[in-house]
Amino acid sequence: MDDTIARYCEFHYGQSYFGVPNFPASLAEMCLRLTRDRPRREALDLGCSVGRATFELARGFDHVTGLDFSAREIQVGAELLEQGFTRYELLEEGELSSLREITLADLKLDGTREKVAFYQADACNLKELYTGYDLILAANLIDRLYDPRKFLVMIHQRLNPGGLLVIASPYSWDEDITDKEKWLGGIRKDGEPYTTLTALHEILAPNFSPVGDALKTPFVLRITQNRFEHTLSEVTVWEKRKPES
Amino acid sequence: MDDTIARYCEFHYGQSYFGVPNFPASLAEMCLRLTRDRPRREALDLGCSVGRATFELARGFDHVTGLDFSAREIQVGAELLEQGFTRYELLEEGELSSLREITLADLKLDGTREKVAFYQADACNLKELYTGYDLILAANLIDRLYDPRKFLVMIHQRLNPGGLLVIASPYSWDEDITDKEKWLGGIRKDGEPYTTLTALHEILAPNFSPVGDALKTPFVLRITQNRFEHTLSEVTVWEKRKPES
Repeated sequence: MDDTIARYCEFHYGQSYFGVPNFPASLAEMCLRLTRDRPRREALDLGCSVGRATFELARGFDHVTGLDFSAREIQVGAELLEQGFTRYELLEEGELSSLREITLADLKLDGTREKVAFYQADACNLKELYTGYDLILAANLIDRLYDPRKFLVMIHQRLNPGGLLVIASPYSWDEDITDKEKWLGGIRKDGEPYTTLTALHEILAPNFSPVGDALKTPFVLRITQNRFEHTLSEVTVWEKRKPES
Repeated sequence: MDDTIARYCEFHYGQSYFGVPNFPASLAEMCLRLTRDRPRREALDLGCSVGRATFELARGFDHVTGLDFSAREIQVGAELLEQGFTRYELLEEGELSSLREITLADLKLDGTREKVAFYQADACNLKELYTGYDLILAANLIDRLYDPRKFLVMIHQRLNPGGLLVIASPYSWDEDITDKEKWLGGIRKDGEPYTTLTALHEILAPNFSPVGDALKTPFVLRITQNRFEHTLSEVTVWEKRKPES
């Protein structure tokens, strides 16, 4: 298992740092709060990485599918699902590391195993079978896509009427991942600053109504015992419009 | 001015994030506390970057020299020294940025200008004129050197007897900066973990006595409005032994 996967394991299943609550668990909790009085049959965790939010959503949903582009990240979720535990090497200093083991049972997630499935998938080219969801969570996804607009103009088709799309993103646009002409925002348009939040409203308006205000939620990714990435991910919630009666 | 320099400007002179106090100012304050009852003629800020600690040390020292390998970073300190202010572009999101201006007067550092000088220098090959200091601060320096051991075995020659060496480092060893055989620690030695802190004690023992315990001090480097590097830098203090009488 390489350093990157181990970082995500610690991010999803390890301890918290600087008092910042577990990010995937917090997002899932928010999703469960939002759907308290709504249908909770099928949920999709799109860009699930090593799968914490997938398991957490299954505390409330009948069935949750976790999808990620990275087969290696999906593999961790699949391993937890199958054997109930996983191990990873936590980088301490230089080349020194220590071994961690985490279990679903310790997180009281053991009961969710029969409600969860993980698959490799491309969010920009999502197979038709992934449809009929009451909730889609896209956490730290949109700025990692090669064509985020393609994803956003299609995604309403995969939600049930009245279903919720929850997007969390630090809008960390990077030319190595997304060609600049595909960035949603963080650009100048007709000479004026054009933010990603504005772009989301414009792109999603035809099919969604925003629910509440955008809210920045922190997360901490541990790199070594002394180095951390501390990021704010902006959470926005969108309800798929019901057909006019 | 490029993004990296602008980050350091914000790190040294900008606002604080996540409630973490300004790092160079905190270190300088600690140095002034440590030298309250000691000579405070000459101080050296080695690896001073854009110079905040250099100015801060001059609140208590008669004269402070700031040295850095990067001519572009030294340039910022020199500009502040000469004109009392500097401007930089703060990256917000994508390619969007906003302009900041900071002044020495706003930081109540205007009075230190006549006590401060900045020069470009190589800490691993330090010119002989840089000597006779009562205090040397090496903040986030040792893991950025191509030969940190060469620096550490020489540095006592530049301190007055009883003078203090203050080292702060996250021990972020990186093969792109320091060849692995030059790493001080974070390695295995005879199969056992060998930390940088242990290495510092071994290398400095012939000429220094440790003062107090190692203490991790946080700092935050802003990358964009949503992305930050949050790091712990371990501070150790070393007193140059006086000749046996």
